Amino acid sequence: MDENILGLVAGGITSVAMLPQLIKVLKEKDVKDLSLLMIVVLITGLSLWVWYGFMKDELPIILSNAFAVLVNIALLISYFKFRK
Amino acid sequence: MDENILGLVAGGITSVAMLPQLIKVLKEKDVKDLSLLMIVVLITGLSLWVWYGFMKDELPIILSNAFAVLVNIALLISYFKFRK
Repeated sequence: MDENILGLVAGGITSVAMLPQLIKVLKEKDVKDLSLLMIVVLITGLSLWVWYGFMKDELPIILSNAFAVLVNIALLISYFKFRK
Repeated sequence: MDENILGLVAGGITSVAMLPQLIKVLKEKDVKDLSLLMIVVLITGLSLWVWYGFMKDELPIILSNAFAVLVNIALLISYFKFRK
C-alpha cells in the first residue's frame, strides 16, 4: 500500500476514534471518569507531533494530530463545563 | 531541534498521556463514562500507525503507537472486567 494513503487512513481512523468520547461527554454531561491530566498532557504531546509533522513534511501526521488537538481542546472545555 | 528527538519527546508525552486514564479506571473500577467504540477504533487506527512507521522507517512513530496499542488493549480488558 502507498505509505501516504496508509498514513491518511491511519490518521482518519485515530481522528474519528476521538469523536465518540467527545459525543458521549456532550450527551451525558458527565465527566466523572475522564482524566483531566490525560487531556492536558495529550494536548501538549499532540501539538509536538504537529511540529514533528511539519519538520518531516508529512501531511498525514500534521492533519491527524492537528484534528486530535482540536478534539481534546473541546474535551477540556467540556470538562470544566460539566464537572460537579 | 533534531527531528528524531522531537519525535521521541512527542511520542513519550502522548504515550504517558494514556496512562492516567488507565490508572483511573484500574483504581475506581468504573468505566461508565468510557467509550467502548473509541477504544476499539483507536486500537485499529494505532495499529495502522505502527505499520506506517515501519514503512517510513520512523522509530518514534513505531514506538509511541505500539505503546498506545498496549495501553488501549489494557483499557479494553478493563472495560469488560469492570462494566456493570
